[in-house]
Amino acid sequence: MNTHRMVINEATCSQFQMSSYFHFITPSGKSSVVQAPPYHYGADFITVYFKSDPEKLQYFLPEPLKVADGSAVAYVSDFVCTISEKDPNAPFEDPAQATYREAAVGVKCTYRGNPGVYYPFMWVDRDWSLVRGWSLGYPKKLADDIHMTRLHKYIPKVPYYGVGTKLSGYCARHGSRILNVSLNITRKGTAKDLISSPSVYAQRYFPANMEGQKSVNELVEIQKGNAQLGDEIWYGEGKVEFYESRNEEVTRIDPVEPLYGLSYQFGFTNYGSKVLEQNIKN
Amino acid sequence: MNTHRMVINEATCSQFQMSSYFHFITPSGKSSVVQAPPYHYGADFITVYFKSDPEKLQYFLPEPLKVADGSAVAYVSDFVCTISEKDPNAPFEDPAQATYREAAVGVKCTYRGNPGVYYPFMWVDRDWSLVRGWSLGYPKKLADDIHMTRLHKYIPKVPYYGVGTKLSGYCARHGSRILNVSLNITRKGTAKDLISSPSVYAQRYFPANMEGQKSVNELVEIQKGNAQLGDEIWYGEGKVEFYESRNEEVTRIDPVEPLYGLSYQFGFTNYGSKVLEQNIKN
Amino acid sequence: MNTHRMVINEATCSQFQMSSYFHFITPSGKSSVVQAPPYHYGADFITVYFKSDPEKLQYFLPEPLKVADGSAVAYVSDFVCTISEKDPNAPFEDPAQATYREAAVGVKCTYRGNPGVYYPFMWVDRDWSLVRGWSLGYPKKLADDIHMTRLHKYIPKVPYYGVGTKLSGYCARHGSRILNVSLNITRKGTAKDLISSPSVYAQRYFPANMEGQKSVNELVEIQKGNAQLGDEIWYGEGKVEFYESRNEEVTRIDPVEPLYGLSYQFGFTNYGSKVLEQNIKN
Amino acid sequence: MNTHRMVINEATCSQFQMSSYFHFITPSGKSSVVQAPPYHYGADFITVYFKSDPEKLQYFLPEPLKVADGSAVAYVSDFVCTISEKDPNAPFEDPAQATYREAAVGVKCTYRGNPGVYYPFMWVDRDWSLVRGWSLGYPKKLADDIHMTRLHKYIPKVPYYGVGTKLSGYCARHGSRILNVSLNITRKGTAKDLISSPSVYAQRYFPANMEGQKSVNELVEIQKGNAQLGDEIWYGEGKVEFYESRNEEVTRIDPVEPLYGLSYQFGFTNYGSKVLEQNIKN
Repeated sequence: MNTHRMVINEATCSQFQMSSYFHFITPSGKSSVVQAPPYHYGADFITVYFKSDPEKLQYFLPEPLKVADGSAVAYVSDFVCTISEKDPNAPFEDPAQATYREAAVGVKCTYRGNPGVYYPFMWVDRDWSLVRGWSLGYPKKLADDIHMTRLHKYIPKVPYYGVGTKLSGYCARHGSRILNVSLNITRKGTAKDLISSPSVYAQRYFPANMEGQKSVNELVEIQKGNAQLGDEIWYGEGKVEFYESRNEEVTRIDPVEPLYGLSYQFGFTNYGSKVLEQNIKN
Repeated sequence: MNTHRMVINEATCSQFQMSSYFHFITPSGKSSVVQAPPYHYGADFITVYFKSDPEKLQYFLPEPLKVADGSAVAYVSDFVCTISEKDPNAPFEDPAQATYREAAVGVKCTYRGNPGVYYPFMWVDRDWSLVRGWSLGYPKKLADDIHMTRLHKYIPKVPYYGVGTKLSGYCARHGSRILNVSLNITRKGTAKDLISSPSVYAQRYFPANMEGQKSVNELVEIQKGNAQLGDEIWYGEGKVEFYESRNEEVTRIDPVEPLYGLSYQFGFTNYGSKVLEQNIKN
Repeated sequence: MNTHRMVINEATCSQFQMSSYFHFITPSGKSSVVQAPPYHYGADFITVYFKSDPEKLQYFLPEPLKVADGSAVAYVSDFVCTISEKDPNAPFEDPAQATYREAAVGVKCTYRGNPGVYYPFMWVDRDWSLVRGWSLGYPKKLADDIHMTRLHKYIPKVPYYGVGTKLSGYCARHGSRILNVSLNITRKGTAKDLISSPSVYAQRYFPANMEGQKSVNELVEIQKGNAQLGDEIWYGEGKVEFYESRNEEVTRIDPVEPLYGLSYQFGFTNYGSKVLEQNIKN
Repeated sequence: MNTHRMVINEATCSQFQMSSYFHFITPSGKSSVVQAPPYHYGADFITVYFKSDPEKLQYFLPEPLKVADGSAVAYVSDFVCTISEKDPNAPFEDPAQATYREAAVGVKCTYRGNPGVYYPFMWVDRDWSLVRGWSLGYPKKLADDIHMTRLHKYIPKVPYYGVGTKLSGYCARHGSRILNVSLNITRKGTAKDLISSPSVYAQRYFPANMEGQKSVNELVEIQKGNAQLGDEIWYGEGKVEFYESRNEEVTRIDPVEPLYGLSYQFGFTNYGSKVLEQNIKN
């Protein structure tokens, strides 16, 4: 293995030295679609917690993950700023490398008794976000379009975040709406309103298409850190809608019963992925 | 004329009743690409003031506007939230109708002795922003892509706005970079650092292509109000770069001498456009 | 009026000399989003003829157009190549200026007894196509995405045009599917299968937003010529589907009864628009 | 390994049965971004052969590939129609899954004495094309925009393919032009004008980011078949231009000496990738 491309812990990442984490694979690393982790993130979320039939959710979990009580989450988010630690100047030097939008659906589950969340569906709008995600184990596809309500402190006649404010977000792909979330704010929220998961489980996967090829198929736990929740949390009535599309299957988890929704800002780091199992089965 | 489509002053706009301000023109107005003004805006700017040869700037001014002292401005901006007053629910019900990005170049000038600014070049990324702009007199074209540095309070290891922070933005069209602005923050700014223009001059224009057609060609003054500057103003070294492109001519104003740059948030309203002259000449 | 910008007949267009037909309005015309007509077009169509309730169709016609027998048409198309006659090198020098996709719905109607077609809905994917269209009288909005089946003579295992081949196309905007057409080819078609309209009626429109402004609101007849139908015409079972969207109202003409569909190639010229009536009412 | 996901030879692909070749990985395979090979392609190319300094080209070749005589190729192409053999209805049922555009640069080389071509740079405009490419070993990144001259038989006043016709194509990413090719047709071409490569070498790659993870790093030979060249081949003066961009390094192979260019249509199949070496070094 090309060990000089591996990032074993945070310490090894501090040289701010590029190499090719992925295509284009060159000695300089300059044209790699993205650098290796750690990845740092600062994002704004419209999140709705909901319940669905546990059996329907189990369908999307790789073995040996077990569905929890039918709890799940959908969000549309604006990853306002994100970097690879090895490429800290991207927000200034290449803004298209440092901001993206994401929509996702997550399922509460356990791995050998340890509670966590697994995201069967994730859509983003940048290629480097696909690559980062896949290498960590996130199941990303490219959206045509992800949009959400954005408010501004200084626009006349449009209220900023507060009781009564309504927010929504959507994701579309191949010319079809896939997912809507919406939130009608009823009160200020607190950190306790966030349903946090001790672990995030995911599946690193790279397929073989001929005999003799290696492949990757690993159940992993994303190594997270630096979690920081913004002060402005808003709580309210939430709504989730899924739509049929030929290359999607999120409607399999309908009907859903929304619990409530949140608007918040969140910062965190993904350091890499710890392997739990090899050659798992979906 | 279809007077029910005209908006004469703010009072007439308060019914929150849609009609067709532009195509698709239907009795209900539901599918009009955008509603009539007033338009409200809340935006984040990376702005660089610069000087160029006054004669080169005069080239882009319609008669009888006169170039000032060669002062000009370029910005890349995120119009985080904007509405037509008649469609106040768009940010929630149709987020793609309520946010866009814009890059522009403006020239200091006078109209019969009255100082103001005229924007010969403006690029945006939404069709309804084109229509709103044109009907007010702004010269908008559609960018492939407008991107700018976006910072987030909660991302680890990426500093938020402050001394030493660097910001940039760009606009591309037809596969070519057209314009770059960048800012290296050196100090906190104040409202006095903004070079405000008493008037914004513009050109309402709709062409005829056969005898017997009406056309529109009016020098106007945009009717602005509700200006509100955000508290967070940042001042620093600015840079502007223009690039050649087959369907652009912004490089005609090169070379430019940058003065300084600003990062700030701004809210305002455009009520419509007051006609100054008819059938002007470019 | 700026008469040097007017194109009265084809003869005046032969100098291949640019001027500003629309923004950006400059002496050179180099950065005009598009040049004046004539416009030449070569396009591939998936077209479905259908019937709807005449009263529902009449709703979308400006006065004094009268709906015909409820006949209508929907198409998704690939405008493979198009130019302004004044900018004949665009396909080579600026490919993004010379190709676009379009979806539309048209209604059979009469103007003072003279039969024709009027298109209440048209979506495209390029700004210069919006401007050309509007200046001629076509009601264009920008799609997120227009896609259609594209076949290739040399791909293995995918049949080319022929009996049994299926084609489809769609248009999406603001993250929602708006329109689908599909065709199941049952036989070779002929020129007689095309339902041609002697006239194309349209509405040139530019709004006023304050007293003193001029506006444009003209019922026009598009001046067409050089029609050339390709040899390869395919006929079959057609299907049309319209979808709800907040800023669209094409579903008002549901239910529709499809008649049949066609696949064909077509070339033509638009010279400009002849005014029929001023200050019409929708 | 999940052997039911492997495709060992063409025979195993004939069931037209979907499974998850890549994310989203589900039991049904319905939402997999793409199905396993074989992949069939029908594409239109603007191709320019050129020479560069062999040492500069060697820089981009993984070991043990050896640069040939400095011969290389750049193209911009329209993959008009393509399918996974397991998803043959995509062109009709989901047109966004069956057409894309691609630009690339290839380098003539040898693998242990066997001549072939290796593509260090490839840009496309669809996520499923990224995934297909990577799993075969192609180094794909997502372009903002790939455009090329498209001609149409029936457009008035624009000549179709023939002597004197000029064609061009470009690729842009992150708001910057990366690559231009152009062709000035001087004569009809023949199959002999195509510089064919006995083998296409590529690099299957999936990175590890923590100890314990598997990774993939294989030098492979793409298994090609069903090559069919279209009748219409056009030969002429070619030109290639590369541009600087922060996340690209194609300009490293400047200066280039163009040899000639071609316009042609080509159909072919990729069955998968045969492993030549494991754990190679770039």
